[in-house]
Amino acid sequence: MENLVKRGKTKALFRREGGVLLMKFGDDLTALNGKKHDTLEGKGRINAEISYTLFKELEKAGIKTHLLEFVPPDSLLVKELEMVPLEVVCRRLAAGSFVKRYPFVEKGKRLDPPVVEFYLKSDELGDPLMSDDAVVALGILSREELDYVKETTRKICKVLEGFFEKRGIKLVDFKVEFGRNKEGNLLVADELTPDSMRLWDAESGESLDKDHYRKGAPLEKVRQVYEELHRRVCHAPV
Amino acid sequence: MENLVKRGKTKALFRREGGVLLMKFGDDLTALNGKKHDTLEGKGRINAEISYTLFKELEKAGIKTHLLEFVPPDSLLVKELEMVPLEVVCRRLAAGSFVKRYPFVEKGKRLDPPVVEFYLKSDELGDPLMSDDAVVALGILSREELDYVKETTRKICKVLEGFFEKRGIKLVDFKVEFGRNKEGNLLVADELTPDSMRLWDAESGESLDKDHYRKGAPLEKVRQVYEELHRRVCHAPV
Repeated sequence: MENLVKRGKTKALFRREGGVLLMKFGDDLTALNGKKHDTLEGKGRINAEISYTLFKELEKAGIKTHLLEFVPPDSLLVKELEMVPLEVVCRRLAAGSFVKRYPFVEKGKRLDPPVVEFYLKSDELGDPLMSDDAVVALGILSREELDYVKETTRKICKVLEGFFEKRGIKLVDFKVEFGRNKEGNLLVADELTPDSMRLWDAESGESLDKDHYRKGAPLEKVRQVYEELHRRVCHAPV
Repeated sequence: MENLVKRGKTKALFRREGGVLLMKFGDDLTALNGKKHDTLEGKGRINAEISYTLFKELEKAGIKTHLLEFVPPDSLLVKELEMVPLEVVCRRLAAGSFVKRYPFVEKGKRLDPPVVEFYLKSDELGDPLMSDDAVVALGILSREELDYVKETTRKICKVLEGFFEKRGIKLVDFKVEFGRNKEGNLLVADELTPDSMRLWDAESGESLDKDHYRKGAPLEKVRQVYEELHRRVCHAPV
């Protein structure tokens, strides 16, 4: 496709007219900062549909996002934004790097309020954690923007937690990104997929996300998990 | 001395009557989480006098601290507190671990607002950085206490910056700790010494703190630096 703007580890962005981008989800599976890489046929379509469904939920709740429309089979039209170089992570239950960093915290402990953390987007530097003050002092967000990002991320957490609960899934944590439109307003951007969230089956506790791949499960198992999550998010009657 | 409560890397605490502790500053010099260790005769006295002088400045500015009185030659009487297990670091100029973590930030860059960061006190875990939300969600501080700690730390920064400026010294960063008294109120505690601050001579830019020792300078050089800082803080006419 022409007008490639950026090719990331799992998505590619192409410029369309009028400040619009086509976000195409690929079949790539990556972990460990891209050191581990595989291909899972059909993953691009699954992630595009899941991300579309979840961004629609945010929009319904009044949260402003980059989403415009779905483009079959595996792409979304989104608003072109000037991206903020932060991974905004929201932790509802303790897991992952959080329990590695603070090992006295039990995996699965409910964090109240949900913990919103900022990681600088930099593979080279290992996506280091940033304090709220550092984000402001280094000019990445103004204090008002930081407050908006934290408040919006907590809203997203509430919306997603309710959405998944109805589908027998516990929301553990998720990552979002933000970008500024031409008017300078912040919109929620990037993706919401099993690559960017931790989700546990409410009954069995089994992961319904990329953790299977991170932990070395066979690709066939990873495929089953992505398909099961896709079924519950996009097709399950509620 | 009897009634030892705790022996740290450079200080020892002894219980006195009526909720009072004697904080005795030792001659130990340590770095790299205690892996590097030496003795500098007279350092305990110097650090006790510097810490006393600086805590007095805070009290004069209306900031509540643990300080009661000086006990010659190398000790302070302080209120016994239930310590909060955080190192509260305030960065006025970028240096140290901050520029290691974010190497695109120039050493010496003025951070505005000053950056207040929380590090969990745990040698074993390597004193990991904590987001504001994590400090609250893990029950280390309530949200109101966190706001108080940040506001108070910024006040300390302002007081110390002005104090050092008059003595030809730039305040780079410092570490404080907080503790709760019996009424549950937070007081500034621990120490303010060349072991816990970064200070640069305003003219030459030379360090006037423990960085010389961290970087392997001869002990005689370290002694000169501590004595020079002591002279400017405790004896210089203003």
